[in-house]
Amino acid sequence: MALARRLAAVVGVEHVLTDPAVCAGFATDWTGRYRGSAALVVRPADRDQVAGVLSECQESGVAVVPQGGNTGLVGGGVPHNGEVLLNLTRLDSLGPVDRAARQVTAGAGVRLSALRAHAGDAGLDFAVDIAARDSATVGGMVATNAGGLRVLRWGSMREQVAGVEAVLADGSRVGSLAGLGKDSTGYDLAGGLIGSEGTLAVITAVRLRLVPSVARRATATLAFASTADAVAAVSELRAVPSLTSAEVFYDDGLRLVCAHRDLAPPFPTAYPVYLLVECADDADPTEALGAAVADIPGVLDTALAVDEAARRTLWTHREAHTETVNSLGTPLKLDVGVPVAHAAAFEREIRAAVASGTLVLFGHLAEGNFHVNVVGADDEERITETILRAAAAHGGTISAEHGVGVAKAAWLSLTRSPAERDLYAAIKHAWDPRGVLNPGVLIPR
Amino acid sequence: MALARRLAAVVGVEHVLTDPAVCAGFATDWTGRYRGSAALVVRPADRDQVAGVLSECQESGVAVVPQGGNTGLVGGGVPHNGEVLLNLTRLDSLGPVDRAARQVTAGAGVRLSALRAHAGDAGLDFAVDIAARDSATVGGMVATNAGGLRVLRWGSMREQVAGVEAVLADGSRVGSLAGLGKDSTGYDLAGGLIGSEGTLAVITAVRLRLVPSVARRATATLAFASTADAVAAVSELRAVPSLTSAEVFYDDGLRLVCAHRDLAPPFPTAYPVYLLVECADDADPTEALGAAVADIPGVLDTALAVDEAARRTLWTHREAHTETVNSLGTPLKLDVGVPVAHAAAFEREIRAAVASGTLVLFGHLAEGNFHVNVVGADDEERITETILRAAAAHGGTISAEHGVGVAKAAWLSLTRSPAERDLYAAIKHAWDPRGVLNPGVLIPR
Repeated sequence: MALARRLAAVVGVEHVLTDPAVCAGFATDWTGRYRGSAALVVRPADRDQVAGVLSECQESGVAVVPQGGNTGLVGGGVPHNGEVLLNLTRLDSLGPVDRAARQVTAGAGVRLSALRAHAGDAGLDFAVDIAARDSATVGGMVATNAGGLRVLRWGSMREQVAGVEAVLADGSRVGSLAGLGKDSTGYDLAGGLIGSEGTLAVITAVRLRLVPSVARRATATLAFASTADAVAAVSELRAVPSLTSAEVFYDDGLRLVCAHRDLAPPFPTAYPVYLLVECADDADPTEALGAAVADIPGVLDTALAVDEAARRTLWTHREAHTETVNSLGTPLKLDVGVPVAHAAAFEREIRAAVASGTLVLFGHLAEGNFHVNVVGADDEERITETILRAAAAHGGTISAEHGVGVAKAAWLSLTRSPAERDLYAAIKHAWDPRGVLNPGVLIPR
Repeated sequence: MALARRLAAVVGVEHVLTDPAVCAGFATDWTGRYRGSAALVVRPADRDQVAGVLSECQESGVAVVPQGGNTGLVGGGVPHNGEVLLNLTRLDSLGPVDRAARQVTAGAGVRLSALRAHAGDAGLDFAVDIAARDSATVGGMVATNAGGLRVLRWGSMREQVAGVEAVLADGSRVGSLAGLGKDSTGYDLAGGLIGSEGTLAVITAVRLRLVPSVARRATATLAFASTADAVAAVSELRAVPSLTSAEVFYDDGLRLVCAHRDLAPPFPTAYPVYLLVECADDADPTEALGAAVADIPGVLDTALAVDEAARRTLWTHREAHTETVNSLGTPLKLDVGVPVAHAAAFEREIRAAVASGTLVLFGHLAEGNFHVNVVGADDEERITETILRAAAAHGGTISAEHGVGVAKAAWLSLTRSPAERDLYAAIKHAWDPRGVLNPGVLIPR
C-alpha cells in the first residue's frame, strides 16, 4: 500500500499499523456500539509529523479520523469507511506549570489523569473532571468540549482553554500557545476548534488554565421525594461559593450499582431521588455545606462523608453507574439537557418514553443534563426520537456533552435551523475545503 | 433614494436618517480619529426589523456597518465609504433576571451601566466593567470581546456569554438564548461571533451570565520603583481569591491627571510606578489585602482607601487617564499585550519607541495589557510599527481588547500567519459570502 509506505517515511515504519487485527482495536469504540474499519492506523510523535501525515493523506485523497483516548460515546473518533485513523496519544508531552499565569501546555495525547497529577505537583489542579479520566486525552476533550462533574463551578473545557495549536487538513499550522490574558485580534480560531469533533483541524497541543488545588472537601448525598425538590435544592446550594458538584441519580440505578459493586447504599431506607453534592475550599467547607443543607426544604435524609473512604463510597454510588450499565449489555446512551427549570418535567417524560428494557438515569443537575442509559429495549429508535424531541421541545440540547458524532448527526435538525445547518456546512468548508477530516461526523454525509 | 424608502417601510420613516449633518454624528468615532460617511443611518427596533434591513441591503448590494454605542477605538463601528450605518441602540430591552440560572437576556443596544443596574436590583452584578460603561452597548461589547478592569477575576466578554441571537447578511436568523449550562451540538456559533467585530453577522440579543454582587471592597494604590516590581506584586496578589483589579499607571500620567481633574495624588512623594488593586468579597477583604501586601517585597508606599470617597479618588487617578489624554489632543492609541513575564521589558521598549510627543501609559497588568497613548508625536506611523513589532516579538498581541477594526487590519500579519489569514478570509466568506458586513474591518480590503 503506497500510502502506508509514504506515512512510514513520516512517522517511522513501526508507527504505521496495517495488521487488520491490530487496527480493529482502534476502530471499535469502548462501548462496542461503533465498529468501523481503518485503512491503517498512524501514530505520529509530534506536530511536524501530524502535518506530514495530513499532507500525504490530502494528496492521496484519503479521509482521516483523528483519535485521542477513544473514550467517545457518539462514534466520532472511530473510522466508519476505511479512513486513515490518526491516533494522537504519542503527543503526550507536558510543559512546566507556569505558576504566575496558572497555565500549562499539554500535547493533545496527554491523559486527563496525568494532567491533573502534573498540576497537583505545582499545588494547582485542572478544573474539568470526567469519569474517563485515565483514558481520555486533552486533545479529544477540547475537540468535544468535555464537561463532566465540576462544570457548575469552573465550566466546561471551553472555559479552560487559553490557546490551541492545530494542523489543517492541507498540513498548514495554525494557532498559538502564548496563553495571553487578552487577545482581540480577529476570529477565535481556538474557540472554533473547541467542540468541532475533529472535523475542522487536528489539535496537536493546548494551553490550559489551571485552578487552585482545594485541599478540603465536604461531600454528602441528600435524599429527596422528587426531582423537582432536588432542582430546588441545587438552586439554593449554588449560593455556596465552594459548591463544585451536584449529581443526581435514582433509586433503581443505585440498587443496580450496589449489587454490581457489592456496596451498601447511602441510607438504610430507599428514597426516590439522590443528590450527591460536594464543596471544595481551602478551609473545611463542611460547616458551610451543612448550614446550606439545613435551610433547604425537601431534604428527606443526609449522608455526610466523615472520612475519605466514606467520600469515595458516595462517589462510587454515582460514578459506578456507567460500568454497571455496561455490565448489563450494550446500552443505548443519550446525553440530553434542558434549562434547569424544566428538568423535573423532562425527567418524567424520559421515564414515560422508555416502555421496554432497563432505564438507568443519572446526570449533572445544575446544568439540567441527564445521561439516559437503556439496556435491552426493543424499540431503541423510538425511545431515541421521543427523548430527543422532548429535549428540543424544552429548548434543550440533544447532546449536552458527548457531542454529535455520527450518532446524533441525523438529529441536528431538532435544535439547529436550516440556516444554522447551512452555516455549519459553510464553516466546515472554510476549514477543510476537501472534506478530508472526519467525514460523516457532525454534518451528515 | 430608493433604499431609504424601502428601509423606511421596514423600520418607520422616522428611523431612517438621511440628513448629512445628522449622519455625520454617527459616522465619526468618539476620539475624532475616524470620520467616515454613511449613505444613511437606519435604527431598527427589533430582530425582525434588523432582518428586514439586512435583506434589503443585501438585495441592493449595499454594504452595512453595525454600530452599538460608538465607543470603539479602531474605526470598526463607523462607515468609511458610504455604507448603510445600522445603529442598534433601539434594541434595548432587558429581560427579567433569572436568579436560578444567574443569567439575563439583553438586547444588543442595552448600555453596560443599565445592565449592571438591572443585575444589581436582583442582588447580582455583570462581571465586565469598562470605562465607557455609560455608552457602550452589550452587542458591541460582545462583537469586540471587550475586556476592561476586572478580567483577572472573571474574564472577558467571552466568558460571560451564554448565548447569542444574530441575523446573517441575507436576513436569516441564527443562535439561541436558552442559556444551557452545557451544549455540545456542533460548531459554536455564539463563540464565532464574539470578537468578530460585526463582520460575520449582526448580534441582536445576548444571554449573559451574572456574578454575585460583592458588597465589600478594599482598594489601595501601591507604589513601586519599577514595572518589574509591580509585575512581581501582581503575581503574589493573585493568590488572594477576591482580587478583582490590578491596574498599572505611571507618575508622568498621574501628574497630568491630577492637573486636569484638580486632584491630589495618592502620595505626597512621587514614585515611578503605581498599581491600583481592588479586592471584592462578601466579607470585608481589607485584612486579606493588607496581609498580602505586607508580604510583598518592593512596595514603597501604600494608600488604602478608608471610605467610598477615597476609593473613588483612587479610581479616578486611573480612570481619568483617558479623558486627560483626550484633553491634550487626538491621541495615537495602541492597545498591546504580552505574556506577563515580558511586561517589564516591553514597557521599556514602549518608552524607547516614543521619541516625540507626550506618552501616557497605563494598563491591566495581570494580562500584560498596556494602553499606549501618544499626543503630538510627529512620527505616529513609526511609533505604531515599532511598538506593534515589539509586542509581536514577545509573543504578544497587537490588540488586546480594542479589536482590529480598520486601524490594525494592515498589521495582522505581525501575529497571524498566512495560513491563519487565509482561514480568516474563508471564515468571513462562510458567514457573509457577499461581503456585505463591515467591509475593510478585520480583513484588509
